[in-house]
Amino acid sequence: RAMDSYRACDNLEEEDVNPAKLKSHRQRWNVRPSEMSKKTLNPIRAIVDGMKLTPNPEKPMIALSIGDPTVFGNLPTDDTVLQAMKEAIDSHKYNGYAPSVGYQKSREAVSNFYSCPEAPLEGKDVILTSGCSQAIELAISVLCNPGDNILVPCPGFSLYKTLAVSMGIQVKHYNLLPEKSWEIDLQHLESLIDDKTACLIVNNPSNPCGSVFTKDHQHKILAVASRNCIPILADEIYGDMVFPGCDFQPLAPLSSDVPILSCGGLAKRWLVPGWRMGWILIHDRNDIFGTGIREGLVKLSQRILGPCTVVQGALESILNDTPPEFYQGTISFLKSNSEICFSELSTVPGLNPVMPTGAMYIMVGIEMEHFPDFQNDVEFTERLVTEQSVFCLPATAFEYPNFFRIVVTVPEEMMIEACIRIREFCARHYRPRSQDSHELDQ
Amino acid sequence: RAMDSYRACDNLEEEDVNPAKLKSHRQRWNVRPSEMSKKTLNPIRAIVDGMKLTPNPEKPMIALSIGDPTVFGNLPTDDTVLQAMKEAIDSHKYNGYAPSVGYQKSREAVSNFYSCPEAPLEGKDVILTSGCSQAIELAISVLCNPGDNILVPCPGFSLYKTLAVSMGIQVKHYNLLPEKSWEIDLQHLESLIDDKTACLIVNNPSNPCGSVFTKDHQHKILAVASRNCIPILADEIYGDMVFPGCDFQPLAPLSSDVPILSCGGLAKRWLVPGWRMGWILIHDRNDIFGTGIREGLVKLSQRILGPCTVVQGALESILNDTPPEFYQGTISFLKSNSEICFSELSTVPGLNPVMPTGAMYIMVGIEMEHFPDFQNDVEFTERLVTEQSVFCLPATAFEYPNFFRIVVTVPEEMMIEACIRIREFCARHYRPRSQDSHELDQ
Repeated sequence: RAMDSYRACDNLEEEDVNPAKLKSHRQRWNVRPSEMSKKTLNPIRAIVDGMKLTPNPEKPMIALSIGDPTVFGNLPTDDTVLQAMKEAIDSHKYNGYAPSVGYQKSREAVSNFYSCPEAPLEGKDVILTSGCSQAIELAISVLCNPGDNILVPCPGFSLYKTLAVSMGIQVKHYNLLPEKSWEIDLQHLESLIDDKTACLIVNNPSNPCGSVFTKDHQHKILAVASRNCIPILADEIYGDMVFPGCDFQPLAPLSSDVPILSCGGLAKRWLVPGWRMGWILIHDRNDIFGTGIREGLVKLSQRILGPCTVVQGALESILNDTPPEFYQGTISFLKSNSEICFSELSTVPGLNPVMPTGAMYIMVGIEMEHFPDFQNDVEFTERLVTEQSVFCLPATAFEYPNFFRIVVTVPEEMMIEACIRIREFCARHYRPRSQDSHELDQ
Repeated sequence: RAMDSYRACDNLEEEDVNPAKLKSHRQRWNVRPSEMSKKTLNPIRAIVDGMKLTPNPEKPMIALSIGDPTVFGNLPTDDTVLQAMKEAIDSHKYNGYAPSVGYQKSREAVSNFYSCPEAPLEGKDVILTSGCSQAIELAISVLCNPGDNILVPCPGFSLYKTLAVSMGIQVKHYNLLPEKSWEIDLQHLESLIDDKTACLIVNNPSNPCGSVFTKDHQHKILAVASRNCIPILADEIYGDMVFPGCDFQPLAPLSSDVPILSCGGLAKRWLVPGWRMGWILIHDRNDIFGTGIREGLVKLSQRILGPCTVVQGALESILNDTPPEFYQGTISFLKSNSEICFSELSTVPGLNPVMPTGAMYIMVGIEMEHFPDFQNDVEFTERLVTEQSVFCLPATAFEYPNFFRIVVTVPEEMMIEACIRIREFCARHYRPRSQDSHELDQ
């Protein structure tokens, strides 16, 4: 027995001093998250998580912060859409793998829906993706290498930066001009372009601005892209969600040469953001992308194999059979709520709302000099929760301080109540500057 | 007029010689696919696309190549599963955004389903993903940096390499031993480990082998990981798909220290691969991952925001209400088809099928020296299509030449017919070696 245990120890020692092992293997646990995961930063989460959001217990919370039109139940999707899903399930045809870029039939449903004489599309020009987020991810991934830069709007949707930075791509912000209905400052845009600029992101209609570009303005954007030879990623997820009297003009039909990857999906217009059905429309009439970009998109799509097949199976019917009244109903509601919010807040001293013409947001400027109680928009919106139980996203989340964003999809009575509370809050904290009080005295 | 045109030219020239522009902007279109998209290589596609797959017009095609159990309609999912989806749709509750890691309720449904006393799970330990592919992508992304290496099985599912290489992660293949029911060559495995090894991928039950590891073997795998301090990505998408008489043992309950990300999903066991519902189960009872890996996974999930909410809504009912008979039915079918295939092919001179004990595949070795008409498994399977209209995937697609993989989910009569044709094909091309013919003469 003594011998046995001696030999066992001997063996153990032998294992311990194995020189090959000592040289190469890890001696202790040290599992760290990757650099890429650490660089995947969500500024909205970072800001919101850092805020003290304790509502006033005497007032029920009204969240005007969430860009999800379904949360209050007042904007259901159409029955046609749900019916199409149930038929897809009952058909038993959509349980297997689809091609990673989507079923051909579903791709054709999308190309037929969006094709127009100036920018014709076929099934092969459509890549179906897991939501518009993945459409944007694939588009950036195929166009940009680490060390390149992309041009993104400011204020703008934070995902562009989140994705780009995680891939080692530099982000350059071009300014939008609130005084010009959030049009792009084209001079500023062009000044940012250099030989490492791989892509210009144009978001129209805009989150967070609710603005819609005119045809003329889009021609000017294309001219900048054209003379600098920069392809465009057009984030048109809010396409066609524009108020009566205003036209949504997709970018691609206006382009004579600039190749465009237009990203969209069911999320907003069909009010089913959770279903994760997005797409990329490849517009390249001058064959500038060539086969390289198309093949690159196909390869990248094979990483996770596209969106849920049931939704793909329902897609044709969703696009073709949803009645026009459904879209119109959503838009009238958004317009009416926007007008309520705008007219209420535009008479609040210290606030400067910018009337939107589409999407589902209003940006409101804060004259910070009149609110000395708060350092910035984050503190302003934080205290709006504490005192009035109204939560709006500070526009610092969109790299645009001293504004906040209001989501106008909430029920009308909630919108009205929220505006009343915001007015009360501002009245309490507003301090006229001496010069202003002098003016007011006159 | 002469003056006018002169000035126009002048202007043009002025624009052309603007020094700022000449310095920085692109002078012509040059849009190239990114390095990452070029590095995203799918070996199966590369090999299959390079094959001449013209079936014999006199024989209907039988494809034994596609790892999709739904293609022939003989393996439908259970009605409970479809009913759960329709109820999720009718509830109107699952149209909005879910948290990017999934609804808490759905995560808890998964954790309850897989929790066991030795490896308890809570909702927070589950990340829902867009299919098991995205689960694997997130797991690799969070554990590995460019320049690291990962250990993957050979033969093995090609996605590991596709993803890793695209991220600049080196792939090292460890051998599986066909003569030991495809157990891991543990000595070879351990010899590959160095201080840049970030992750060991263990796939059990195995694609393409159809093998199932014993508890004892898994203890030995864990011992290697433990003494080298390497976390494990356990690809258990075929979990519980094992034949009667064999037990599926998940890896995590056997681990005393090694942290494990177990990837799974609805695809195979519930026969709905197109629905893209996958998950990561985080097993880290010794707190080696700590909060870093968990937070990293959450951050990475925010890039594309998780799987379709309708499937998430149906998940609890799918997991809890699917009757045991459904699972048993699938398994008996797979076992019966495997036995037919194995017993047919094991008497074919020149072929060496390895009987599986789970999943839905059989690997068949080719004694290439007896088939001088063909250079390798790719040519062998190519000609099998040309002559017999039977398509099996050459195992070169799994980095394992001189084998081919048969998918056993096809209807029984097709399986039988395919085996008859394979026998005929082999009989026609088999050439006994002189030594063998001598032996045969005895």
